Amino acid sequence: MVERKDILQEPVKHIKINGELTVDQLIRQFSNSGSFGAGRLSAACNIYERMLRDEECTVFLALAGAVVPAGMRSLIADLIRERLIDVVVSTGANIVHDAIEAVGGHHYKGHWKVDDYLLYKYHIYRIYDIFVPEEDFIKMDHKLVKIYDSIAAENEGKSLSSKDFTWELGKRLNDPESILRVAYETKTPIFLPAVRDSEFGYAYLLHASRKNVNKLLKVDAFKDVLEITEICKRSPKIGMIVIGGGVPRNTVQSAALASKKGLDYAVVITMDRAETGGLSGSTLAETVSWGKVKEKADKIMVIGDAMIIFPLIVASVIERLGEKFERTPYIQRENLLGT
Amino acid sequence: MVERKDILQEPVKHIKINGELTVDQLIRQFSNSGSFGAGRLSAACNIYERMLRDEECTVFLALAGAVVPAGMRSLIADLIRERLIDVVVSTGANIVHDAIEAVGGHHYKGHWKVDDYLLYKYHIYRIYDIFVPEEDFIKMDHKLVKIYDSIAAENEGKSLSSKDFTWELGKRLNDPESILRVAYETKTPIFLPAVRDSEFGYAYLLHASRKNVNKLLKVDAFKDVLEITEICKRSPKIGMIVIGGGVPRNTVQSAALASKKGLDYAVVITMDRAETGGLSGSTLAETVSWGKVKEKADKIMVIGDAMIIFPLIVASVIERLGEKFERTPYIQRENLLGT
Amino acid sequence: MVERKDILQEPVKHIKINGELTVDQLIRQFSNSGSFGAGRLSAACNIYERMLRDEECTVFLALAGAVVPAGMRSLIADLIRERLIDVVVSTGANIVHDAIEAVGGHHYKGHWKVDDYLLYKYHIYRIYDIFVPEEDFIKMDHKLVKIYDSIAAENEGKSLSSKDFTWELGKRLNDPESILRVAYETKTPIFLPAVRDSEFGYAYLLHASRKNVNKLLKVDAFKDVLEITEICKRSPKIGMIVIGGGVPRNTVQSAALASKKGLDYAVVITMDRAETGGLSGSTLAETVSWGKVKEKADKIMVIGDAMIIFPLIVASVIERLGEKFERTPYIQRENLLGT
Amino acid sequence: MVERKDILQEPVKHIKINGELTVDQLIRQFSNSGSFGAGRLSAACNIYERMLRDEECTVFLALAGAVVPAGMRSLIADLIRERLIDVVVSTGANIVHDAIEAVGGHHYKGHWKVDDYLLYKYHIYRIYDIFVPEEDFIKMDHKLVKIYDSIAAENEGKSLSSKDFTWELGKRLNDPESILRVAYETKTPIFLPAVRDSEFGYAYLLHASRKNVNKLLKVDAFKDVLEITEICKRSPKIGMIVIGGGVPRNTVQSAALASKKGLDYAVVITMDRAETGGLSGSTLAETVSWGKVKEKADKIMVIGDAMIIFPLIVASVIERLGEKFERTPYIQRENLLGT
Repeated sequence: MVERKDILQEPVKHIKINGELTVDQLIRQFSNSGSFGAGRLSAACNIYERMLRDEECTVFLALAGAVVPAGMRSLIADLIRERLIDVVVSTGANIVHDAIEAVGGHHYKGHWKVDDYLLYKYHIYRIYDIFVPEEDFIKMDHKLVKIYDSIAAENEGKSLSSKDFTWELGKRLNDPESILRVAYETKTPIFLPAVRDSEFGYAYLLHASRKNVNKLLKVDAFKDVLEITEICKRSPKIGMIVIGGGVPRNTVQSAALASKKGLDYAVVITMDRAETGGLSGSTLAETVSWGKVKEKADKIMVIGDAMIIFPLIVASVIERLGEKFERTPYIQRENLLGT
Repeated sequence: MVERKDILQEPVKHIKINGELTVDQLIRQFSNSGSFGAGRLSAACNIYERMLRDEECTVFLALAGAVVPAGMRSLIADLIRERLIDVVVSTGANIVHDAIEAVGGHHYKGHWKVDDYLLYKYHIYRIYDIFVPEEDFIKMDHKLVKIYDSIAAENEGKSLSSKDFTWELGKRLNDPESILRVAYETKTPIFLPAVRDSEFGYAYLLHASRKNVNKLLKVDAFKDVLEITEICKRSPKIGMIVIGGGVPRNTVQSAALASKKGLDYAVVITMDRAETGGLSGSTLAETVSWGKVKEKADKIMVIGDAMIIFPLIVASVIERLGEKFERTPYIQRENLLGT
Repeated sequence: MVERKDILQEPVKHIKINGELTVDQLIRQFSNSGSFGAGRLSAACNIYERMLRDEECTVFLALAGAVVPAGMRSLIADLIRERLIDVVVSTGANIVHDAIEAVGGHHYKGHWKVDDYLLYKYHIYRIYDIFVPEEDFIKMDHKLVKIYDSIAAENEGKSLSSKDFTWELGKRLNDPESILRVAYETKTPIFLPAVRDSEFGYAYLLHASRKNVNKLLKVDAFKDVLEITEICKRSPKIGMIVIGGGVPRNTVQSAALASKKGLDYAVVITMDRAETGGLSGSTLAETVSWGKVKEKADKIMVIGDAMIIFPLIVASVIERLGEKFERTPYIQRENLLGT
Repeated sequence: MVERKDILQEPVKHIKINGELTVDQLIRQFSNSGSFGAGRLSAACNIYERMLRDEECTVFLALAGAVVPAGMRSLIADLIRERLIDVVVSTGANIVHDAIEAVGGHHYKGHWKVDDYLLYKYHIYRIYDIFVPEEDFIKMDHKLVKIYDSIAAENEGKSLSSKDFTWELGKRLNDPESILRVAYETKTPIFLPAVRDSEFGYAYLLHASRKNVNKLLKVDAFKDVLEITEICKRSPKIGMIVIGGGVPRNTVQSAALASKKGLDYAVVITMDRAETGGLSGSTLAETVSWGKVKEKADKIMVIGDAMIIFPLIVASVIERLGEKFERTPYIQRENLLGT
């Protein structure tokens, strides 16, 4: 039985901003006040820091929402390069937008209040306040069709998993800033559980619809279930950071369940809410009933726009870790991927 | 140039509830007031009615969020049976939960405020305020493994699309109330663009992990892109009703784009919002810039819980159509699916 | 200790819509499925029905958000007239918009996607998708200034409560459809805890800024605290229906606390959420810690747009009560207001 | 006519976090990416900076939501002291919670997942994840009753405005960290348009219900309309920062309208959305139709939790202004308040 005095232990310490502060100095003040979103954000930083300092933990990043075109491309590529993320599970679209820049295309700062029909006539696609010119998609489509041909030729009827597919893409893209490229070079798995639901699907249509196509790219819809489950099984501990939710969040959670493990660490950044029953807004408490997340797991949901929240978390944690921090992911140390 | 008097044409007519009202009588009052959610909801009913009365329109239902376990299973099965929906695009999970009931399992009314660790110990899974006993999942897993074996045996190395996969399931499930069964019987396509992201994926793990497995189920990740695009191409007009958003919404919109058509009708029911850049909350105006939805399309977003909103729309439209209304979907009339 | 079998009692009964349904027939189906928003909505109908059938209960309606201009004016006036609401606590603005129609003004169906600067030049005010011409505000301002003069003259330096103020307005407005008028005629208190925050405040500015003003209208900021607390004290039971939240919700809850009672029934309709710490989104569980709502109270929050949800609740409950139902509010039976 | 090339000017520059960053260094990167919430947040910092550097601008802070108990008490007191905020418009509750700490009470870090009935039995009030012991409220009530007596005695039947009331409180509270005290000392107006809707109302009940009370505190509900409008009228330019929305936002906007000015700068931090028609979620575009905000105003809404967003804005702007920045508010320079 909790006693009254145990409940009233820690007075809120009010935030003070008297001059220049580093990101982590402000986040640590959020930890002292401990309230509402500020408390959740500071808890998320603590949890990500602990994931990284825990040598037995494999860190998953689940990625939904258009965060790559919106400015997180380098951030994610750098996290992979610096071994601060071990496995990526993403919507197809985020990786498509990485590929667009890898073939020389761009995303542009636009505006949400714009005549969409004018954009249509100008062949400019809008993602909220980002613009992408159609020709950059077309350029990528052409490149992808060639890459698909090449993958199909090399793999001779063998079905790939979505992870194999992304590595094959990374192998063929030369942009050192590309998430796909960095993932390929560091042997970091990128899973795309809904790979066809993106321009990768449209490129497949182009690839498959030509008269003279010899061999078709084969990606198996189920194969990566075996791979991601295996990673979970072999990792002593597993953690996830979720941006948005959707299929990527569900995929990581299901792998944690299928491997009979349950997640040890979980940070979810979302604007969704629980009451309408969708997965993205479901509480981390709910996942405990399934065994997807352990009851004792270190876990928090941060309610906010990931374009603000995730960079804050990364900046705070990188500041805490310091320049000398080095990390070798468990799955790489143990050569779990057999590469 | 719009003149002032053109803007001030139609005074709000206030809602009156003096006694018993049918659903459509209330919705028509919402149309007279025309404001906020009430105006959007009445517009959605008008659009769905027009889709159904337009003999050239193929109607897609995009399904995300746990609406099938939550009480919409019969509603969706009936809409398919009565030819009021022509194509379904769904998350894997919704169709999994249809299958659970098809093999004799159940969903139970539960509560959101519950000790999830107790549920865990009791082997009860929670979806917000719905409970599912683990044994019903296990029962379905066993059945699915047998079905996968059977599909693999019959298809001899041929890769299925996700649509083929759902029909193969429907063929092997005998429950006449099942969405999968009704879809199979009526030759209504169900696409699962992220099929592996659900218990269908775990059943695949069981299926593939056995020592003595002979043939593996093969579902091609990209194949259904060709099929869904073809349906769009051949349909003179296309319309969609979206519940939730996510991968299913994106899949329908991408097919509309890939077929160089653009949607003629669109109803989106969601709680997501546009500002964070995710697909589910993106406006229908934004889709116009891509050509996914036509500028002149009849379109509306309703901000609300689909478990309330969608049954209201269906009840209102069924009341309007009356008992004698009959509809033969264009894709069936023209035998577009070649069945 | 709850046993497993106790938890898995009631299978979800799926919604069936085979033909015309009354609103309550659909809501009762929501009750059978019991899930997500549908379950909450059906619970809200049950609770409002029980409030009305409980002869000891005084029913408060707390009103925030622009629901009166949006189409709820007659609905609320009728609820007051039929004695289905006993006390109203509102933002100033909702009552201002009632007054605008009472002096012959109108609200117009507009659109949210409009050039607001054009509206500005046309002297048309926008409330999301409702338009109000400035001249209707001006007409009301003129009338209000006269009414303020008259109230000041009659009350001779006496300070009014906000409830006195609304009755004085109702006395001077002849529109039988007006909320203010019906409240005055039925002696239903309308409290405006932030009365100055609305066009009533601007009219005061006009009233007070004239050179030749003799007597100033006096409304005491605190006086209605005594009145509303007294109503709570004398009512054996208290219930509230909240639209939106904000100051009106807080006012009712604080009166329940100040009277050392705690609410027995509570329905809150809102789109706000708890995590950011605001009152409007705070859970009804939280209010229990304060004693504002009883632990055993019959209570539910419905997450949705009140313009859809509240008319559904009213239609469902009116259908249940039937034509012969009559109700005399406790506070009127006992002449609690001393009128 | 905008040309295509004008639209595609500025490629998104991806965020890079290679080591320790100050808050403003990160925000400036958000400005380069320019997308979603990150773009809005960086715009908000720019606008607040411009407000402060504009010598003709009076800066209003509108305060709703429980931000003072949650950790913003010192932040707001410091902003007032440093002349970075000129006028405060607040819910009663935020100022009540300032007073609780001024009389020696505390707010405690708690948890949102807690047995509220246990808290009730322990006489602990919960505000999401903050706990307040009832005795601290009682202590403040006693003090307030004495202060009310003293104010009533000193003012001899004169009705105060809510601004007078807060200064009278500040005069009688000795805590130099108190918002009320600092506001009193710096002659910064604090308006409470719904003053009775808070513990200030309950204290009035105690004050007025005693048998032997001689003189009653008189606060006029409308008087501050004249004062706040006058401030707007006399200020060459006006700007506002809104936390949450509700009555405080509406009050500032109405004053801007009543003074025939329109706001020149506006930052709104909220989680509310526009579609349900409430004031808090209404767009700043909508306010242009009324003339509350100028069409050319520098304005942005940031969608997020104010406990995260507002400190980020303040930290970024304080870093930009540097240690030597000094500001004398226009209303003080011109002695607009006549003090």
